Amino acid sequence: MENKFFKKRKIVRINDILSCLNLDKKNKNFRVNDIKDLDLANKNDISFFNSKKYLHFLKKTRSDLIIVEKKNINLLPKKKNFIEVSNVLLSVSKVTNLFYPEALEDCFDSSATPLVKKNYVKLDAGLNILVGKNVKIGKNCSIGHNTIVEKNVKIGDNCKIGSNVILKNTIVGDNTNILDGAIIGKKGFGFYPGTNKNIRYPHIGKVIIGNHVEVGCNNTIDRGSLSDTIIGDGTFLDNQIHIAHNVKIGKNCIITGQVGFAGSSSIGNRVMIGGQAGISGHLKIGDNVKIGGGSGVIKDIPSNSKVMGYPAKNIRIFLKDNR
Amino acid sequence: MENKFFKKRKIVRINDILSCLNLDKKNKNFRVNDIKDLDLANKNDISFFNSKKYLHFLKKTRSDLIIVEKKNINLLPKKKNFIEVSNVLLSVSKVTNLFYPEALEDCFDSSATPLVKKNYVKLDAGLNILVGKNVKIGKNCSIGHNTIVEKNVKIGDNCKIGSNVILKNTIVGDNTNILDGAIIGKKGFGFYPGTNKNIRYPHIGKVIIGNHVEVGCNNTIDRGSLSDTIIGDGTFLDNQIHIAHNVKIGKNCIITGQVGFAGSSSIGNRVMIGGQAGISGHLKIGDNVKIGGGSGVIKDIPSNSKVMGYPAKNIRIFLKDNR
Amino acid sequence: MENKFFKKRKIVRINDILSCLNLDKKNKNFRVNDIKDLDLANKNDISFFNSKKYLHFLKKTRSDLIIVEKKNINLLPKKKNFIEVSNVLLSVSKVTNLFYPEALEDCFDSSATPLVKKNYVKLDAGLNILVGKNVKIGKNCSIGHNTIVEKNVKIGDNCKIGSNVILKNTIVGDNTNILDGAIIGKKGFGFYPGTNKNIRYPHIGKVIIGNHVEVGCNNTIDRGSLSDTIIGDGTFLDNQIHIAHNVKIGKNCIITGQVGFAGSSSIGNRVMIGGQAGISGHLKIGDNVKIGGGSGVIKDIPSNSKVMGYPAKNIRIFLKDNR
Repeated sequence: MENKFFKKRKIVRINDILSCLNLDKKNKNFRVNDIKDLDLANKNDISFFNSKKYLHFLKKTRSDLIIVEKKNINLLPKKKNFIEVSNVLLSVSKVTNLFYPEALEDCFDSSATPLVKKNYVKLDAGLNILVGKNVKIGKNCSIGHNTIVEKNVKIGDNCKIGSNVILKNTIVGDNTNILDGAIIGKKGFGFYPGTNKNIRYPHIGKVIIGNHVEVGCNNTIDRGSLSDTIIGDGTFLDNQIHIAHNVKIGKNCIITGQVGFAGSSSIGNRVMIGGQAGISGHLKIGDNVKIGGGSGVIKDIPSNSKVMGYPAKNIRIFLKDNR
Repeated sequence: MENKFFKKRKIVRINDILSCLNLDKKNKNFRVNDIKDLDLANKNDISFFNSKKYLHFLKKTRSDLIIVEKKNINLLPKKKNFIEVSNVLLSVSKVTNLFYPEALEDCFDSSATPLVKKNYVKLDAGLNILVGKNVKIGKNCSIGHNTIVEKNVKIGDNCKIGSNVILKNTIVGDNTNILDGAIIGKKGFGFYPGTNKNIRYPHIGKVIIGNHVEVGCNNTIDRGSLSDTIIGDGTFLDNQIHIAHNVKIGKNCIITGQVGFAGSSSIGNRVMIGGQAGISGHLKIGDNVKIGGGSGVIKDIPSNSKVMGYPAKNIRIFLKDNR
Repeated sequence: MENKFFKKRKIVRINDILSCLNLDKKNKNFRVNDIKDLDLANKNDISFFNSKKYLHFLKKTRSDLIIVEKKNINLLPKKKNFIEVSNVLLSVSKVTNLFYPEALEDCFDSSATPLVKKNYVKLDAGLNILVGKNVKIGKNCSIGHNTIVEKNVKIGDNCKIGSNVILKNTIVGDNTNILDGAIIGKKGFGFYPGTNKNIRYPHIGKVIIGNHVEVGCNNTIDRGSLSDTIIGDGTFLDNQIHIAHNVKIGKNCIITGQVGFAGSSSIGNRVMIGGQAGISGHLKIGDNVKIGGGSGVIKDIPSNSKVMGYPAKNIRIFLKDNR
């Protein structure tokens, strides 16, 4: 699928990539289509491998051009082309920037102008609403006062958006509520730490919010870097929740106040998480998992488990240890 | 006391209630006045019993019509009328909705219009303030820029409301400060979880904030479902605190940044809570309790205790265990 | 350096100070220049000593007039003048209020008016921006919609300020980004707890943010009471972080989402803090420290340590204890 939100450079060749990484150019200067995660890449896309957590994706990836560090080259499937670099994340940042030169910075949307109510079907609109370019709003929606719907947002039917909300680079399903003060779709907290100056990382992903979802007050949901941040159908989020870039939350989850998700974690369906719990990055939480309030989850949790504690463990053990 | 904020259906009879619960109708179709918590209900109000935590309220309730599950029928005082249901919370949700058909959804207030300064006495008003219907603002107040005072709000004298604040269904006492970005009075995170779609729960309660209170920046304080969420006189709340529906906080408490309260907990007077602590739902914290920063409180705490830890225990034991 | 943000009373004499503390006046009614922390005070400034944590500052202070409680008088360097009081913090609050009568309350800035874009060099300005008196904005900046830059703010060159941001009493360096919904520069959560009414504490400090800094969405950063709250060059802050008054954060730190800092703590350079960690007040965290997500830090941490846990300890011990 074409990335409709960020403008992609039309033609990128392998030599452009090598050049932006300060590497020697190749004889065969073939064309590269896009940069994508291993599991989403097609044959002509460049991808990257940085952590053994994603070895199963590496083995099945369709990408034929992979950015990799020396120590991991032996893990690549045979016959794959690769680019050896000294720092994968920094290199991915540079290559993404090559493809999407406009996705690096994350300024406010200066294209936004006051909403014109008659452009939408049965919209209940508050005062002082601003709307950017490339915005679609379904029928029977309500949008509160002072809300800013920046460019590249699609809202489904029967949605209720509160006041003081900021939306950008986001797709919202039908019958979904987004409460006051939520900020959705800004770039994630991803960058290459530099000694004098951190190098910001382009974020070309979106936030995709399903149907019948509720997003609480003052939530912050960041968009993905290469792939998307996803909130599944029927999931309810309480107030002051933080969801970092590339997190995927399944369907019918119930997430209580002040919970935080670090980047790239994947949460199953029907997961219940108590208040103030934290989920570390790059974890996989199964279906029907219950996580007690205040827990700190630092490893994968299989489906149908109940955990609590910091670090989180089986809830029976936690309660026994703390009797 | 009449609920002045949400419009109540004038006449509700027992047969209307049975009908909305899909139960057989009764011969005697008497009139029911309102739906209320056990401790607040009068003889003609319907109430409900769902947790043994509230057995002491059940024994003393004036309500003569109680919604209850089969397993708890034997706990009812003799001679009480009851309605047996398979799920109390879902039934209460339906009956509340029958009484208060407008309290289910929680849209922005489309009745709000730009504030007219001369309507108020000695008001120091910022720019772009919006005010809904049924709003009272006392004398000598200040209200910052972009603040939205939705319908059904009463603010006392000498209050200082910051900028970007959203208030709804809230009563504020005298000499109280509400700082920038606070969102007060939205419906609580209460609903009946459905497999495909969660059923939202009507919230007909208010937020009641006392005199000489300070509410910090970006706080979220939800209104109660049947009864109110209450912040007592002289209590100070730091930034980024989340207070769920039906929480009662006593007088002269000091609550530090990022603390979270789950629903229906009751906090005594002069309680001090350190940063990032969390209080589980339906707990009773006594007077003069000190709770260390980062604690997770999961059971009742008697007055005059000092606790810390996750789960919270006597602070001397916590410090000894962690020496 | 003169405090340019809060108006100082021109002439304060020792007898004014004694009088505001209800103490007997002195024969020699010499003039006092200002009230400052021990380490920043000059010979003619009044200062105060309240905690043995600051004994090293007491020994080197240039101040010759120190507010102190009886139990600590013997710790004062010989020949220092002192004022004995029964409660240092309450007395400092009163004396600060004597010097800075306008710094006690923290109302919205009623001097703010709609931004006039042409007053600034190459400013990319959103809609509905308000700007107070004594505001300087450098060249090549962008400021999002609905943002309020209250009086006493200086923003450097090439800064990107988001939408719905509130800035006051803040100095921002060059090339710094402040994301949507951040609230920076309000008074800290410092007051003298009273039995019926808390007595607010004047906050005459600023927030000073360095160059190449990023401040995340919905962050709250309070200004200092006597000295300043400082965020060093190159430091990146994720979303929903709370930084209390007088905190000093060094250079090139990486602070992840929902972290909280209690008042007056000092963080070194290149410190990395995982999500939801909390740092207690008045602590000293060294350089290159790594603090795991969810940790609760309650004592000083030397440079180059890795800690995790609640309370935080050596990360190897934490992981071993929790294997």
